[in-house]
Amino acid sequence: MAFRLIESLGSTEALVELFSDSSILRAMLGFEVALARAESKLGLIPASAAQSIAAAADPAAFDTAQLSRKSLRAGTPTIPLVKRLIEVVRSVNASAAAFVHYGATSQDVSDTALMLLLKQAQSLVEADVVRCEHALRSLSEQHRNSVVLGRTLLQPGPPTTFGLKVAGWFGSVRRGRERLTQAFDEALTIQFGGAVGTLSVLNEKGPILARELAAELGLKCPDAPWHTHRDRLANLMCACGVLTGSFGKIARDISLLMQHEVGEVSEPSVDGRGGSSTMPHKRNPIGCAVTIAAATRVPGLVASYLTAMVQEYERSAGGLQSEWPTVAAVIQATGVAAASIAEIAEGATVDTARMRQNLEGTRGFVFAEKAVTLLTSKLGREKAQQLVETALQKALAENRTFTDLLGEVPEVANILDKAALQRLTVAEEYLGSAEFFRKEMLRDAPISNKS
Amino acid sequence: MAFRLIESLGSTEALVELFSDSSILRAMLGFEVALARAESKLGLIPASAAQSIAAAADPAAFDTAQLSRKSLRAGTPTIPLVKRLIEVVRSVNASAAAFVHYGATSQDVSDTALMLLLKQAQSLVEADVVRCEHALRSLSEQHRNSVVLGRTLLQPGPPTTFGLKVAGWFGSVRRGRERLTQAFDEALTIQFGGAVGTLSVLNEKGPILARELAAELGLKCPDAPWHTHRDRLANLMCACGVLTGSFGKIARDISLLMQHEVGEVSEPSVDGRGGSSTMPHKRNPIGCAVTIAAATRVPGLVASYLTAMVQEYERSAGGLQSEWPTVAAVIQATGVAAASIAEIAEGATVDTARMRQNLEGTRGFVFAEKAVTLLTSKLGREKAQQLVETALQKALAENRTFTDLLGEVPEVANILDKAALQRLTVAEEYLGSAEFFRKEMLRDAPISNKS
Amino acid sequence: MAFRLIESLGSTEALVELFSDSSILRAMLGFEVALARAESKLGLIPASAAQSIAAAADPAAFDTAQLSRKSLRAGTPTIPLVKRLIEVVRSVNASAAAFVHYGATSQDVSDTALMLLLKQAQSLVEADVVRCEHALRSLSEQHRNSVVLGRTLLQPGPPTTFGLKVAGWFGSVRRGRERLTQAFDEALTIQFGGAVGTLSVLNEKGPILARELAAELGLKCPDAPWHTHRDRLANLMCACGVLTGSFGKIARDISLLMQHEVGEVSEPSVDGRGGSSTMPHKRNPIGCAVTIAAATRVPGLVASYLTAMVQEYERSAGGLQSEWPTVAAVIQATGVAAASIAEIAEGATVDTARMRQNLEGTRGFVFAEKAVTLLTSKLGREKAQQLVETALQKALAENRTFTDLLGEVPEVANILDKAALQRLTVAEEYLGSAEFFRKEMLRDAPISNKS
Amino acid sequence: MAFRLIESLGSTEALVELFSDSSILRAMLGFEVALARAESKLGLIPASAAQSIAAAADPAAFDTAQLSRKSLRAGTPTIPLVKRLIEVVRSVNASAAAFVHYGATSQDVSDTALMLLLKQAQSLVEADVVRCEHALRSLSEQHRNSVVLGRTLLQPGPPTTFGLKVAGWFGSVRRGRERLTQAFDEALTIQFGGAVGTLSVLNEKGPILARELAAELGLKCPDAPWHTHRDRLANLMCACGVLTGSFGKIARDISLLMQHEVGEVSEPSVDGRGGSSTMPHKRNPIGCAVTIAAATRVPGLVASYLTAMVQEYERSAGGLQSEWPTVAAVIQATGVAAASIAEIAEGATVDTARMRQNLEGTRGFVFAEKAVTLLTSKLGREKAQQLVETALQKALAENRTFTDLLGEVPEVANILDKAALQRLTVAEEYLGSAEFFRKEMLRDAPISNKS
Repeated sequence: MAFRLIESLGSTEALVELFSDSSILRAMLGFEVALARAESKLGLIPASAAQSIAAAADPAAFDTAQLSRKSLRAGTPTIPLVKRLIEVVRSVNASAAAFVHYGATSQDVSDTALMLLLKQAQSLVEADVVRCEHALRSLSEQHRNSVVLGRTLLQPGPPTTFGLKVAGWFGSVRRGRERLTQAFDEALTIQFGGAVGTLSVLNEKGPILARELAAELGLKCPDAPWHTHRDRLANLMCACGVLTGSFGKIARDISLLMQHEVGEVSEPSVDGRGGSSTMPHKRNPIGCAVTIAAATRVPGLVASYLTAMVQEYERSAGGLQSEWPTVAAVIQATGVAAASIAEIAEGATVDTARMRQNLEGTRGFVFAEKAVTLLTSKLGREKAQQLVETALQKALAENRTFTDLLGEVPEVANILDKAALQRLTVAEEYLGSAEFFRKEMLRDAPISNKS
Repeated sequence: MAFRLIESLGSTEALVELFSDSSILRAMLGFEVALARAESKLGLIPASAAQSIAAAADPAAFDTAQLSRKSLRAGTPTIPLVKRLIEVVRSVNASAAAFVHYGATSQDVSDTALMLLLKQAQSLVEADVVRCEHALRSLSEQHRNSVVLGRTLLQPGPPTTFGLKVAGWFGSVRRGRERLTQAFDEALTIQFGGAVGTLSVLNEKGPILARELAAELGLKCPDAPWHTHRDRLANLMCACGVLTGSFGKIARDISLLMQHEVGEVSEPSVDGRGGSSTMPHKRNPIGCAVTIAAATRVPGLVASYLTAMVQEYERSAGGLQSEWPTVAAVIQATGVAAASIAEIAEGATVDTARMRQNLEGTRGFVFAEKAVTLLTSKLGREKAQQLVETALQKALAENRTFTDLLGEVPEVANILDKAALQRLTVAEEYLGSAEFFRKEMLRDAPISNKS
Repeated sequence: MAFRLIESLGSTEALVELFSDSSILRAMLGFEVALARAESKLGLIPASAAQSIAAAADPAAFDTAQLSRKSLRAGTPTIPLVKRLIEVVRSVNASAAAFVHYGATSQDVSDTALMLLLKQAQSLVEADVVRCEHALRSLSEQHRNSVVLGRTLLQPGPPTTFGLKVAGWFGSVRRGRERLTQAFDEALTIQFGGAVGTLSVLNEKGPILARELAAELGLKCPDAPWHTHRDRLANLMCACGVLTGSFGKIARDISLLMQHEVGEVSEPSVDGRGGSSTMPHKRNPIGCAVTIAAATRVPGLVASYLTAMVQEYERSAGGLQSEWPTVAAVIQATGVAAASIAEIAEGATVDTARMRQNLEGTRGFVFAEKAVTLLTSKLGREKAQQLVETALQKALAENRTFTDLLGEVPEVANILDKAALQRLTVAEEYLGSAEFFRKEMLRDAPISNKS
Repeated sequence: MAFRLIESLGSTEALVELFSDSSILRAMLGFEVALARAESKLGLIPASAAQSIAAAADPAAFDTAQLSRKSLRAGTPTIPLVKRLIEVVRSVNASAAAFVHYGATSQDVSDTALMLLLKQAQSLVEADVVRCEHALRSLSEQHRNSVVLGRTLLQPGPPTTFGLKVAGWFGSVRRGRERLTQAFDEALTIQFGGAVGTLSVLNEKGPILARELAAELGLKCPDAPWHTHRDRLANLMCACGVLTGSFGKIARDISLLMQHEVGEVSEPSVDGRGGSSTMPHKRNPIGCAVTIAAATRVPGLVASYLTAMVQEYERSAGGLQSEWPTVAAVIQATGVAAASIAEIAEGATVDTARMRQNLEGTRGFVFAEKAVTLLTSKLGREKAQQLVETALQKALAENRTFTDLLGEVPEVANILDKAALQRLTVAEEYLGSAEFFRKEMLRDAPISNKS
């Protein structure tokens, strides 16, 4: 029910569901129930009150559209929600009503509810990122020897291996996942401070209750309430932003490799995927498009979150109120990018013959740098460069092969015999440290990034 | 049903409804029906087919959650929608099925549907902006003589009038509304180009059909299809961004004026509004907070849209797919800001006595500039400035009134007698051209912004 | 001297120069001189004072690095500048010193100086945009009959003409330029309001003086001071953002068309351009890269500007102080994008043979939609689609031509004879309204975008 | 010489200097010299060549404005720089010219140079952040007992301590600094990959040379070249963004506390700081304004960087070329914010008497929540809330004290005697866990943020 057309290209279904009304409602009520339970444990409210509150906190008793309407007036969903909760509690246990939301402030509820949702988001998103890593690692291993054109500024360069290309993708995803996990771990704390962050209503019992509440909810207890200190959450948004940027790079690469004119890699063809309403022959890079879309949207969303950090005093007028849709959109976009790249990495079709063919299609030009290097020791760099350049120009003009033209230059022929010229354009002989770097990036615990 | 908790502080209910599944579905089906009708008028498809399509395009026959799921695979909501529409048409009139979506491409549907929604958005948003203008104009007239501290860098400055302050707000809102209207008017065109923007299937009939289709839908017909040329829509997003920035400025001002320590203006107190879950005494600037929240979010969203403009070739892989949620969020945020400021402007409480009191609370310091001006002709600016500065420092140190201390300086007393000193701090005598500027900004057709 | 490495890919030299210290200094001093002159004309200050101020306002007497240092402490460059100007004036005409900066506030100087710079920017940027328009128009005319693959989601689609493609680019640039001109025209007004926007020091003379000052400076006089109402400038930033987005789209297209594997269009090869430090054979799309870089940066910069719009009261603490580098960067990026695309459009190499070859390289697949259309009338859409799909799959699997396989299907052969099959893949016969749309977009005064 | 007017409010002088032409030039030449030295150590080039290169790499021999001009054509500053370096080397040692830039690609130079600059930036910025932490810690200790109004949505709430407020600021700065250090540490690696990231020219010697080069430059050696994997740098930009957001929050708070009408805290008054060109009495929050300006600009800049992450293949056309000005601006803004807040925290004037007075100015309203709590046990929450509300309304209407009115309600008087009513509004009795939380946040190694 939750998956909506407006967001259908911007989220997985599970992450739409996560920020649906029923999910938010459950999380907010979860806070109130856990609070009452913790307070009853510490003797701050009667056990019967806690039971009544738990019983009353039945999502079915709440009309979320109505709550939304009232939220806009109240400036927070908590106020109408608590009001309704009190009504329900009162209807079953009048004396318990006074203990609903005891000692808490609106933002304690909304922030902690958000944390509960983010905890679920962590599992969902990280699972897909880990799938990506596995699939990319295995793709890289499989193609350690697949030679492919290196390309810079969208122009052909010397060869590399497809395994190294994929290892580069893998490396950035792994680093991104490590940062993401760390950011989630830092951010996932309860919010519990009362009106101005002193838990004044609870006297000296505040910190013990906070710890108890955190335990009830399975979240960490922070050193202090953080109503207007949003840096942990901002850091999480940024970790999502960076990871989505890395996914965007992978998606751009694959969508380019999938061009008909390049044809080296294709997204898996899945039922219902990538067709066209007008062009029956098409196989579109839909997973890439959805991922690039995420990478297109997220930077602005991260900016919106960072802008909102400037929150006044103990509770802000504006910054806070802007956050929810931004956080949801960032998480959803990250999640759909992770899921899309995971699916692509697991099922991509790689055409190594086409890779070889495209390499040969450059007629040897991409080995010009190598030719210069080989000739430099005998001719000096300047002379070498000049001869190579001339041969290249001629080859381009006459539509012939670079090595053929090079072989016709006497100074070159004196240095490089036919065999040497033939070896000049053997890709495998010009891969430098491709395999070394590839292995370094796939190491279980990378140690080389140490001083 | 459409108003959701996640967005409850970020939109009015009507604008949430506008981008709801049922609304989007209606708009997309609306395109298909109008297309069939136009094609039947031009004899391109049988009239009976058009009738069957119109009959089949009943929203009740479509499961939007299902469509959303399939959209993510297809990369567009159009493909599953058209597929389903064909099914329904076929079930009633098998021969008509071939004429569904005839000559159109997916993006023709999704873009034109968006335009249909934006047309409704225009009415909704502009109505609230116009309410703002009326209310601000009237508030300005009412307070043309209400003296208030000018404040720069949050510090007190010479006096101005509350009427001028409000006229400044009015001016920026009016300019913003004019730009918004112009941007809507430019943007609201159909999209109709077929697979690559040539309407190839329709041979030479394309342009005539396009014109007919536009007429059916009440939208303009552009000079050509614009699948990857998003500048008109980008311009609309920007117009929303600029206007929301102006609303944000007004909201910041009012929230500051509403501080307990300032107390010059208050938001209207409306039932269910601005209370606190913990502090029964509070009257919170909720309308301002919601508006500042909009102004906090929108710049990043505009950036997301501008980033998406770089769309490849005839149809993009990524840019386009990112747009819908961004457009919806920008429109919704603009709308909720307009509605909030309209409500505030219509019902604000203005405390002119407190304005006067705050002005007097500066003990004359804010007239220092005037004193310098008065003394300069006789003493030279340097001397004048030095004497004034000394008097100010002393007044601050001794917690006394500026004019008292000024009067004790012999050089000053020679120039300004007691009466002159008293007049020095009469706010009404130091308003410069406040009323002139106020009137200029309220003119019906401002003519002064001409060279 | 002004062109700096850090910005060397982000601006033309002229636009770096425009925001250099000497240029800003000239503009700020220009304000003070014009103010004195206007005041002397109206008899507000002695003519001799105005002359002394004009004489003293010699850039050579100001140490801009020193001013910068003091700006950071003062919160504005105006304060140290005026202080220094007073010193210099006093050294030549002691009595004139009191009349420096008379009636103005710091922001009057800094904002008006910015307007003077933006006026120059308008000429510089618009000249390059107009060059773009001319070159694109002529390129479009030249290639009205050049057939090229339409491409959607980076995959081949039915043919279009290169002339239509370029006309689409032209259309967006022309609209962007019109919006830009309008935005400059609206924004280029003086700022003159004194301490809190009332021109209190000048009594009733303010508005007349403002008009005189505007005339002196060649800027418009606004209806009122606009210290914290930045919407006109925000609108200008947005117009730059939208236009740069359009340039980015063009640059992306050209960089893709310039891929070795596509090879349909190339940037002009200019001395010192597009080479590689390691790959002597390369011809890089440098103009495209610089333009895409601009389109990558600008959205975030526009967001920074929009965020800054929320300025407090009569003068803000933070928003205003953030503006200068943002405005400069947006203008420079727009300018370098315009200049780059102008140069490319004027000198691009177009390979129409390669276009034809790439089209043929699809082996007829891109005419599948046409085949379906032709067969539908006889076979019904479903049957037609199914036959075409099967032929396509077989053609793909056997690496053969689509029409060959289609011809082998008896149901098809009955409807389309050999000649009809041959015509099926003649691009010129499937261009729909390409030429119509192209002409519409090149019209001098487009009239079709009317309801 | 480097400090420029355009950036004068956006950077400290040292950080402007850091990204000046001479500094960038030194860093780029530093790469070439270190590369030659490392290559000579490994016997890849003659020792004499390395010496000649080191000798030739004299910044005085390079015209940076000229290089900038050529950069724009070449698409990178490296190409003209290397060309010029070869010229200079050749003029002293012709045979050495061939060994300049041996095995490297343009981006190896530009990226590694950026890393060298960022290493210096780390020292500069972190020093100021550490100053902040020290000053905030000490300010918090000093004011552990200074009672101040808590304020939410800019309205007064129950009291807290200024010490806790400052501890909250401290906590976010400390976390931000830890993230920043980690981000710098991760990012500061050399870039060395040759044309396509395989170091092909160097055969199997690449990785050893990379390690040697890193050692020469005092940077880490990464697991592999990272030309189009910008996540480490993106993460650093984000760390700057989050920290600047925290500084922005502090600056907003202080600028609000410094309002004349609040008057609880002031920026230190420093010579040349915070004055006004028109209002001699003013003491402006310049440090706050500069910091808020940074927090206003940075989110958009972070978005620009994240957008640029989507870089194609082995070297991008657009993303990379956009980076330098963004990185410089982010670092500079972070640095100026850190320096401003450090200066403010070290020298702020705190008016504890005014804090008390503002608290009393609420006439007891802010203790309403406490009153409800006290009365609830006897009267039930509903009744308690209703009585308190009535008393509040009356007190507001009659401009009297809350406790006075409360005392006149018989039901209340029965429960709270005069002494109890008097204690009701003693701030010190309603601080809850303020001191506990304060201490937790100042702990040397915070342990409470553990599950």
